[in-house]
Amino acid sequence: MNVAGKFIVVDGPDGGGKGTQLARLERSISAAGGSVVRAKDPGGTEIGERVRHLLLLEENPGMDPRCEALLFMASRAQLIAEVVRPALQSGQTVLCDRFISATYAYQGAAGFPLDEVLALGGAAVGGVWPDLTLILDLEPELGFARTGRTPAISRKRSSALRGQMAMFDGAVVDAIEQRPIEYHRRVRQLFRSLPDRYPGRVVLIDAAQSADAVEAQVQDALRKTFP
Amino acid sequence: MNVAGKFIVVDGPDGGGKGTQLARLERSISAAGGSVVRAKDPGGTEIGERVRHLLLLEENPGMDPRCEALLFMASRAQLIAEVVRPALQSGQTVLCDRFISATYAYQGAAGFPLDEVLALGGAAVGGVWPDLTLILDLEPELGFARTGRTPAISRKRSSALRGQMAMFDGAVVDAIEQRPIEYHRRVRQLFRSLPDRYPGRVVLIDAAQSADAVEAQVQDALRKTFP
Repeated sequence: MNVAGKFIVVDGPDGGGKGTQLARLERSISAAGGSVVRAKDPGGTEIGERVRHLLLLEENPGMDPRCEALLFMASRAQLIAEVVRPALQSGQTVLCDRFISATYAYQGAAGFPLDEVLALGGAAVGGVWPDLTLILDLEPELGFARTGRTPAISRKRSSALRGQMAMFDGAVVDAIEQRPIEYHRRVRQLFRSLPDRYPGRVVLIDAAQSADAVEAQVQDALRKTFP
Repeated sequence: MNVAGKFIVVDGPDGGGKGTQLARLERSISAAGGSVVRAKDPGGTEIGERVRHLLLLEENPGMDPRCEALLFMASRAQLIAEVVRPALQSGQTVLCDRFISATYAYQGAAGFPLDEVLALGGAAVGGVWPDLTLILDLEPELGFARTGRTPAISRKRSSALRGQMAMFDGAVVDAIEQRPIEYHRRVRQLFRSLPDRYPGRVVLIDAAQSADAVEAQVQDALRKTFP
């Protein structure tokens, strides 16, 4: 299995074990003599961190969803230019925690048009799409049980969502406000739809199992994608 | 002439008299009983000003041109959502100093793909394109003579340009570095190409004349577009 010069993303809901699997992946690639660069989206560069700070400011309750999506993409463009592209060109393996797939699922579940997410993503990456995206798939309830969080949407997120839903599909606002778990079911559904949209480039991993069993699936996917 | 609920942009090079013409336009619309909202791009909202600040930071010499373009667009998305759309919906006239046409000309002249500028612009405005864009067209030499500036490209701009040209079209880097006036000629050429691309929605105004003569052309364009 040759992952030199490959761009690998691990994405999926909180509680799916992304951090654990990224660490194990890094260890196994390094043990086989490969050189790994870790990246994190959003952020991961000085400019990207400034953008992330802007995104997280609590005093931005009125941020437009299009503005938000464009800021996420700006941060990604910088990550690609400054970290990912140079690493790939020098033959390193880039392991990235979340990427455009996250905007696809989370903003998409809030009603942002999916084709627009992908078009903006294309403008951000300038041709450097991930070679492989591993989605650690999990029932929302299990994710929340693992992280100890409740399935609420944060106040900021909730307010942003209200704006987004009002903009794109007013009818579902109340549903999401009252049953935030429904929102996370939509998120899961969108993550699960990605392998059909990008066969061979996005692989679904059952993350409900033990970390060892998940790691075995991850290694299997890597062997199949990069023989 | 009815400009209620219309979105009018004035764009073009420095020295073309945008500020003067915007002020006169505001006065004439107000005198006719209309209600005017002035806007400025980039910036014009609290979030937009934060983004603009990020764009102007001198310590960002390594900002990727795609990141830069996405940040400009994010600021615009916020301006549309927070200022332009509500004003138009309430029947006011929005007069905006520069807009996507500026990215088209300045980033385009630096080699950024024009179709990408327009696609990103579409994602930013979400359907709220200007009803009329007036380009105050001027020879670069005359613009520089009026503003008292030399036709140099600022150091930050020059460094960003070098990155962009290297990215899109390496052959012209030296030409621009050595003869910055050539860059501004390209900018002018792109501004001048817009009326053909958007007939009736972008109008070229000869800005070499007196402010009174330019104003007469502006009023003429408004009467024709909004009879």
